[in-house]
Amino acid sequence: MQPLVGLIMGSKSDWPTMEHAAEMLDRLGVPYETKVVSAHRTPDLLFDYAKTASDRGLKVIIAGAGGAAHLPGMVASQTSLPVLGVPVQSKALNGLDSLLSIVQMPGGIAVGTLAIGKAGATNAGLLAAQIIGTSKDDVRKAVDEFRATQTQRILDNPDPSDQ
Amino acid sequence: MQPLVGLIMGSKSDWPTMEHAAEMLDRLGVPYETKVVSAHRTPDLLFDYAKTASDRGLKVIIAGAGGAAHLPGMVASQTSLPVLGVPVQSKALNGLDSLLSIVQMPGGIAVGTLAIGKAGATNAGLLAAQIIGTSKDDVRKAVDEFRATQTQRILDNPDPSDQ
Amino acid sequence: MQPLVGLIMGSKSDWPTMEHAAEMLDRLGVPYETKVVSAHRTPDLLFDYAKTASDRGLKVIIAGAGGAAHLPGMVASQTSLPVLGVPVQSKALNGLDSLLSIVQMPGGIAVGTLAIGKAGATNAGLLAAQIIGTSKDDVRKAVDEFRATQTQRILDNPDPSDQ
Amino acid sequence: MQPLVGLIMGSKSDWPTMEHAAEMLDRLGVPYETKVVSAHRTPDLLFDYAKTASDRGLKVIIAGAGGAAHLPGMVASQTSLPVLGVPVQSKALNGLDSLLSIVQMPGGIAVGTLAIGKAGATNAGLLAAQIIGTSKDDVRKAVDEFRATQTQRILDNPDPSDQ
Amino acid sequence: MQPLVGLIMGSKSDWPTMEHAAEMLDRLGVPYETKVVSAHRTPDLLFDYAKTASDRGLKVIIAGAGGAAHLPGMVASQTSLPVLGVPVQSKALNGLDSLLSIVQMPGGIAVGTLAIGKAGATNAGLLAAQIIGTSKDDVRKAVDEFRATQTQRILDNPDPSDQ
Amino acid sequence: MQPLVGLIMGSKSDWPTMEHAAEMLDRLGVPYETKVVSAHRTPDLLFDYAKTASDRGLKVIIAGAGGAAHLPGMVASQTSLPVLGVPVQSKALNGLDSLLSIVQMPGGIAVGTLAIGKAGATNAGLLAAQIIGTSKDDVRKAVDEFRATQTQRILDNPDPSDQ
Amino acid sequence: MQPLVGLIMGSKSDWPTMEHAAEMLDRLGVPYETKVVSAHRTPDLLFDYAKTASDRGLKVIIAGAGGAAHLPGMVASQTSLPVLGVPVQSKALNGLDSLLSIVQMPGGIAVGTLAIGKAGATNAGLLAAQIIGTSKDDVRKAVDEFRATQTQRILDNPDPSDQ
Amino acid sequence: MQPLVGLIMGSKSDWPTMEHAAEMLDRLGVPYETKVVSAHRTPDLLFDYAKTASDRGLKVIIAGAGGAAHLPGMVASQTSLPVLGVPVQSKALNGLDSLLSIVQMPGGIAVGTLAIGKAGATNAGLLAAQIIGTSKDDVRKAVDEFRATQTQRILDNPDPSDQ
Repeated sequence: MQPLVGLIMGSKSDWPTMEHAAEMLDRLGVPYETKVVSAHRTPDLLFDYAKTASDRGLKVIIAGAGGAAHLPGMVASQTSLPVLGVPVQSKALNGLDSLLSIVQMPGGIAVGTLAIGKAGATNAGLLAAQIIGTSKDDVRKAVDEFRATQTQRILDNPDPSDQ
Repeated sequence: MQPLVGLIMGSKSDWPTMEHAAEMLDRLGVPYETKVVSAHRTPDLLFDYAKTASDRGLKVIIAGAGGAAHLPGMVASQTSLPVLGVPVQSKALNGLDSLLSIVQMPGGIAVGTLAIGKAGATNAGLLAAQIIGTSKDDVRKAVDEFRATQTQRILDNPDPSDQ
Repeated sequence: MQPLVGLIMGSKSDWPTMEHAAEMLDRLGVPYETKVVSAHRTPDLLFDYAKTASDRGLKVIIAGAGGAAHLPGMVASQTSLPVLGVPVQSKALNGLDSLLSIVQMPGGIAVGTLAIGKAGATNAGLLAAQIIGTSKDDVRKAVDEFRATQTQRILDNPDPSDQ
Repeated sequence: MQPLVGLIMGSKSDWPTMEHAAEMLDRLGVPYETKVVSAHRTPDLLFDYAKTASDRGLKVIIAGAGGAAHLPGMVASQTSLPVLGVPVQSKALNGLDSLLSIVQMPGGIAVGTLAIGKAGATNAGLLAAQIIGTSKDDVRKAVDEFRATQTQRILDNPDPSDQ
Repeated sequence: MQPLVGLIMGSKSDWPTMEHAAEMLDRLGVPYETKVVSAHRTPDLLFDYAKTASDRGLKVIIAGAGGAAHLPGMVASQTSLPVLGVPVQSKALNGLDSLLSIVQMPGGIAVGTLAIGKAGATNAGLLAAQIIGTSKDDVRKAVDEFRATQTQRILDNPDPSDQ
Repeated sequence: MQPLVGLIMGSKSDWPTMEHAAEMLDRLGVPYETKVVSAHRTPDLLFDYAKTASDRGLKVIIAGAGGAAHLPGMVASQTSLPVLGVPVQSKALNGLDSLLSIVQMPGGIAVGTLAIGKAGATNAGLLAAQIIGTSKDDVRKAVDEFRATQTQRILDNPDPSDQ
Repeated sequence: MQPLVGLIMGSKSDWPTMEHAAEMLDRLGVPYETKVVSAHRTPDLLFDYAKTASDRGLKVIIAGAGGAAHLPGMVASQTSLPVLGVPVQSKALNGLDSLLSIVQMPGGIAVGTLAIGKAGATNAGLLAAQIIGTSKDDVRKAVDEFRATQTQRILDNPDPSDQ
Repeated sequence: MQPLVGLIMGSKSDWPTMEHAAEMLDRLGVPYETKVVSAHRTPDLLFDYAKTASDRGLKVIIAGAGGAAHLPGMVASQTSLPVLGVPVQSKALNGLDSLLSIVQMPGGIAVGTLAIGKAGATNAGLLAAQIIGTSKDDVRKAVDEFRATQTQRILDNPDPSDQ
């Protein structure tokens, strides 16, 4: 199926975080492609990827990176598709560097930033689906169902000490 | 014209920041509505606003708040529309509290977070338009033109000392 | 016995922290109820819980949450009972995000915030008892006895190298 | 009228912050006393104040301090009344030092901590009233009315651009 | 031998850090006493300890504490002996809270603060000896010898890869 | 004269900071060129600038940027010339975001980072000259003279109260 | 009179902070000398100053510096006199950089660190006097009198609203 | 072969970090020497090392240190060779102290600072080679080849889930 979401990351070591975005997209039935694209080590690939993304039929790009995380912002500079950024937890500074490098974009180029690490990757997949859902009813319904399910799971297990 | 973006904020004091989102939406020709909705002081209004947003035709919600900024996350908990959060700069902690309160959402409820303050508000307007542009060609074109214009403005004035 | 304290948390994963509040309430003889209530995943339950708390006889609510910890503040927005917030230690930012999301409330809605993690949960139980003790003598006495005991335990073991 | 709240602070320079607690207590009809008590410069006075507070009829103590803010915690160590701490905004570190010095109490001695600065002082007055309201109906009603009023004020002025 | 240094800490759990101060004092031949004194749990003991310290012949007090670390500052408020503070590494915030709670004292009450954790405890022992060495030649000589030895140890092993 | 240093920045608003690099290069007699090159708004220009820099005779590139400061790292990804990064002080976070976005580069692409703001810009000019001085004697001498002069200025004015 | 305290700082611009140390020493009758000594710009002077300090009769050295504040630690590396460090408030990071650069010394070389800015400078003067007071009765008495006076000033003016 | 890079560090415990600089220099064929030089414990050695570095034929100095990391800045104060600083990850503060102590140098003495830990050490070796490559073609070519190789490695393995 034609991918609607491009899921890229700066390094293979980001996959254990970013696969949670893939899982969410799988769950919500949103087709996607995955690729390692490094802002610093493969800048030409990054430019090519970003510039052709819209013509290749992508609707949203999710980019994960850690440390001086330039990937999301540099992708955003080359496409007018919505770009979502996931700060991967870094070793020394625990992802605070990744977060600030992604979220503090100057006015004029936007990156919708999610939480540091696994929760952020999960939510990047979810938000991508919500964006696509603004024009595709089946995706919106899948999101609604996912949300209802997670609510019900808590309502069904209200006792915190019943681990 | 039917608003496509709901632009809300926790307090009138957030307007000097959030009006930059309105300006960007105006510039890109995206109709929107504005309202003060406080997560803490008007929680019932917040719930009503969020739950009816999709049926009222909105496609994206932009929520700005400062300090323990609960508005974006609580709106997101009540709608499956994409929600964008703008951390308003707070007095003591300069918006670091606002940023962390908005971006560090748990897996399952997503807020696409922009930069602290004016740049973030501007980019929330821009990203909302990019999202709407995934299904509306005229908005995508307006984004492309805005982006081309801002690029050209730099290319035309490359000398930094010529202030 | 009629619970006087509502002890809620955003997720079952918060229980290893929040059980220390329960232990303190047990120790001081204050009856309480426990429940998982998620601000983000079960907002309707949260509203219902908070709005009925006073009528159900609760005197204090303790709410624990991590990351973008909206639970304490959102409970406080729906009740005029005193609300105590416990920042649960988060993975990437060690609970600094939880702390700021809970403590930096705007003027007009208050959350009495305790320390990050176990010590904070313990003290939330203690402070709830102190609050109830302002009108119930037996609880105040239990607090006084607990305090005297912990003081005596140090006085009886003054040698730090005698581990 | 017999004071129910003791409102103390480490220095006269804390008054411009702490007077917002006094204003809230005035508004809610809760009698209080105010005094400068420095943990570091008048430790004997601090001990005497804290140890006699309960017998003098106080129900809650609000303590504001900045920097290495030891006042709230040291008061709490000498009384079993509920103690609320207000981190006063410090010069170099903007109150982050005040906040951490107040909130990070060890298990066994609790301080209910509010936000840095004016909002925190306002909320300390409010939370003190909520605590007293758990046993005094007129104070609870005053809190409810205050809360209803502040909600209505937003509902009556929903347009953020109407400054 | 008459102790010249009082080495106190808020809890037995601080001993694995603070024993490094004891080791340094042993090495430099400075007699000392050790005791658990908690600012929060044994405030009366703290006051008694601090007020009698000078008369009991102590020349310097070393106080270690973690989190909202009030012990060093509260000792300093009760004695005019020099007080050295050691921030013990805390769980959630890694000792940044301990450091700020100790070092950010207001003008008029001083605590000479050392590094977080083991290095700080070691240096508290060393600095106490340096202070005593300003009037006792044998201690000054012991410090000089220690310093010369640690310098020589590096000069004798200059190859970093020879682990 | 053929420029040896390329001095670029993300925006004209960075000039009041970056002109201190230009002043130092002027003082040390190192020819340079200046240009506004935005990583986000003119990515094609950035790539072209970086890729041709070496062939155009540049020996060092100095790049200044603020917030999510991607310019230095992205230039470094396109050239093997040494790149020096200057974190421009940002509004909300005072340049901590700029600093982390520049310095926390992944292994394999290096940016030599200087201090936040004016001091960093001054030192970027100085370090560029030191680098060039490793192969050009006249520049090394100019650096030595500058250093001697600044040392002498302090030695000649040792009294701090003589302002 | 023979100076007992050496009061040095990295730059004349540190004087408005460091003069508060001088004022305290004046008040307590402790003779001192002042000098600009820059770790970075006059390293030879620094070494000479530190190495001769003890022989010239100094008992304590107070060193103030901002940013990457190396002066206190480098002085301490050259003398076995007690060294007190004052973090001068820096522009971008408000002195957090100064504080960490001074306080986080490795085991084996100690700097007794005071608060950031004016309060820290004041307390450096006070702590220097306390150190000297361990062997000189007149200085100890002056400290005791100063302390009694500042306590009395608060006791005489207990009303915070009487500004 | 005559060393061109001096690779020094404050302690043997820094070697597991700094050896990554050595590995990069080996890979790029740049001769270097290694030595433990402690700013605090062997200041005389430090001065001697720095002052003779240029005459001994070194072209660049790489200095790694942790905590109050004074080594890079103090070396820079004694030589006009380019100095690169590597913040070694510290225990309590994860290297944020090391980073700020190294990077926040005052105007007039420059240290080109790399990332915290292993990535920073790797890049210090790389940047040193880039600096030497400005005048030595074989080193520049080795850098270009290294860069091409690391780019190709990503291009050859684009699938992130193929771990």
